[in-house]
Order: sequence, then structure tokens, then C-alpha cells
Amino acid sequence: MPLNPNASIEITAFRWVPEFAQGVVRDLRARWALEEAGLDYRVRLLGQQRPLDYLKEQPFDQVPCFNDGEVRIFETGAIVQYIGEKTEQLLPRDPQGKYRAIQWTYAALNSVEPAILNLLLIDVFFQGEEWAKLRRPGAEDFVKLKLKRVSEWLGDKEWLEDRFTIGDLVMTTVLRFLRHTDLVAQVPNLAAYLKRAEARPAFQQALSDQLAAFAANQPQPEGAAA
Amino acid sequence: MPLNPNASIEITAFRWVPEFAQGVVRDLRARWALEEAGLDYRVRLLGQQRPLDYLKEQPFDQVPCFNDGEVRIFETGAIVQYIGEKTEQLLPRDPQGKYRAIQWTYAALNSVEPAILNLLLIDVFFQGEEWAKLRRPGAEDFVKLKLKRVSEWLGDKEWLEDRFTIGDLVMTTVLRFLRHTDLVAQVPNLAAYLKRAEARPAFQQALSDQLAAFAANQPQPEGAAA
Repeated sequence: MPLNPNASIEITAFRWVPEFAQGVVRDLRARWALEEAGLDYRVRLLGQQRPLDYLKEQPFDQVPCFNDGEVRIFETGAIVQYIGEKTEQLLPRDPQGKYRAIQWTYAALNSVEPAILNLLLIDVFFQGEEWAKLRRPGAEDFVKLKLKRVSEWLGDKEWLEDRFTIGDLVMTTVLRFLRHTDLVAQVPNLAAYLKRAEARPAFQQALSDQLAAFAANQPQPEGAAA
Repeated sequence: MPLNPNASIEITAFRWVPEFAQGVVRDLRARWALEEAGLDYRVRLLGQQRPLDYLKEQPFDQVPCFNDGEVRIFETGAIVQYIGEKTEQLLPRDPQGKYRAIQWTYAALNSVEPAILNLLLIDVFFQGEEWAKLRRPGAEDFVKLKLKRVSEWLGDKEWLEDRFTIGDLVMTTVLRFLRHTDLVAQVPNLAAYLKRAEARPAFQQALSDQLAAFAANQPQPEGAAA
């Protein structure tokens, strides 16, 4: 149970987010990697209004940032890779194994996620707009093509390469952005892959810790005591 | 001049692409990194119809793949990072310097490129479509916000961190996807940053080698001798 208020590793996360984002905010990736690695961490919670100088830590105004006293970084790809370097559990040591895992981390974030987030934005933020209605079928087709590519690669393997790595950690959190659709369910080997990842105790702990912060900081309904 | 038909490092690239893509196809990143590192490489050119088993090398059917006999990988982020590990020129050795560079590589590919490629696709592939016309202003605003974020971080620094790294290499190739617009020109420090990167001899060599392959394999106009 690596959540520890006295830990030397600190990550940033949001105090609260609307329901569509709960369970997929990106600090989940850092939490999950830290749980897999068995590294204690503490969380600095941020409101929707970040302090002005937060941009000096995270120029895109997002979470998480990571700081262990030695390295201060943002971008979940870099963070999980850095955590991965601390434990063979997440990142093999041989050059081929290591770089295959890193390759899948980049693939998840650059070859798969953009298509999926595009669809999520259409469905969540732009739902009522005319262009979004016109574009949705094409955007969905593009997601399906990406899922097909990953599914064909995966085949009947358990993980993208011969064992679980940061590549699977990031890829499965990317697939979770589709949970408002049945697109992953339509691809049985991907659905099973996602389920396998989500069943890992480290994932379950990370998810429950992210959700616990949101539950504790739920905004009060109008008229409730301040 | 690292292009060498007998090199042990091989990358894949396209034999020819239409003009809008010439000079921005992603093997440029691998070529540039190899030039910076002074590592010889050879190129395996692929047509628009890739061999069926190419998907086993590159599941997303893209270029480049990289193979040096020890490591076989795809995804330019992973490739430039792997090359970077071979030379301090591209990737500092201290953990903070190293991971700041890696963080910017991910930031370029995940926090900046998707917005930019979205605009490029609207302008190049979907130009005539109704949704694209309706969406373009919002898509452009999103690109401007991303450029503002990078510009504010950069300030009057020469590079994203204290020296040129793989982060700058990837970020500036991402900015090049906007060359059909004046969006980078509108942000003077970013325009100067891009110019500085493109002035590097290694970049110039990489670009000219990519373009030379396209020039040599220009499709014959209809009716010309086969």
C-alpha cells in the first residue's frame, strides 16, 4: 500500500473531477506503476484552478507531475518509464526487451491514444455540435482501425510482448478512455487483455486511491452547509 | 555522412510520398538522430503497398522501423531515445537531464502533435468536408493554445532545457507539420527555435537524404515510358 504522506516521491493529482473523468485521470498511470514497483508516494492535490506557477512545473497545466528529489518530470510516458527503470517488474533489463516495452509506451500514447481521445472529446465535450455529429462515424472508424491493429498484434498473447511491462500499463489505460462505448468489447482479445490488466492488484489499488480522493472531495450540492 | 549501404543499422522509409508529406515523413526523425550521433545507417525503401508481413514489424503500417542487429523497434519516440542513449550529444547522462529530455519527447508526441496532426488532416485530407469546415476554427485555436504553452516554457531559452536533446529534435519535427500555415511564424520565439533546429547540419543532411529518395523515385507522368 504505497500511499504514504511521508514518502519522498510526490505526484500531483486533481482534488476532484466530473464523473466521466473519474478513474481515467492520468495520475492513475503513475499510481499504478508505483504500486507495481512497490514504491511509496504521496499526492499533492490540485483544484481546477491551479496555482499560476504550476505552469513552470507542468507547461500544459495537466497532472501528474512527479518528483522524487532526484528527478522532477511531467508526462506520464516519461514518469512510468522512469519508475520502470527502478524495477525489472515493469521494464526488462536487456536492450531488446527494454526498448520493446518503451516502444509500446510510445505507441500507446502516439499511435493509439490520439484517435481514442478524439472520439472521447466528440462524445463528451462537443456532443451537441453539428461538426461532431458529422464527424463521429469517421472518428469511430479510425478508432476501430487502431484497435484492429493492436488486436492483430496481440493475437492470443497475454501481453504485447512476452510479459507485462510499462507498454501494457500505458496501452490499457489508453483503452480505458473508451469505457463509454462498446468498442473494446467488440474485440474479444482486447477486451480480455484489458480485463487481465485491470485485475492486477496494483491497478486495483491505484484506481481505488484515485477514486477515494474524489469521493472525499466531492463538491457539496447547492444549499448544503459550506 | 552516415548513409551507408553496408551499415549494420537499418531503417525503413517510403520510396515516394505526395508533396505535402515530403520532408515531414517520420523517418526524418531517425535519420536526424543518426546524423547527430554520427552513426552509419542504410535505408530499406517501401512502396505504398507494404509487404503483408510488414505489420509484424510495424503493427500500424507506418515508417520507420529500426534494426541494428541488437534491437528491433518501431515508433520514432523509442527510436530517437535508443539512438540518444548511444551518445551524450542527444541525451544527457545524469538522471534529471536524461529524463527531462525524455519527458519532452513524450510531450512533443502526446501533448502537442495530436492537436497539430488533427489540423493537418483537416487541411489536407478532409478539406472539402462539411464537418472539417465547421471544426477548423476550433482545431486551429487548440493548436494555438499548444504553441502558446510551448512558447511560454521556451521563453528566451535556446532549447527546451539547457542544451539540445532528443526532446528538441522531436518537438521541432512536430512543429514542421504546421508548415502549410503561418501559426509557428505568429509565435516569434517558436519560429526562431524551429529555425535554429533546422539549421543544424545533421538536420540538413537528414532532410536532403529523405528528399533525395523521393526525387529518385518520382512516379512517371501518365504516358511516359515505363
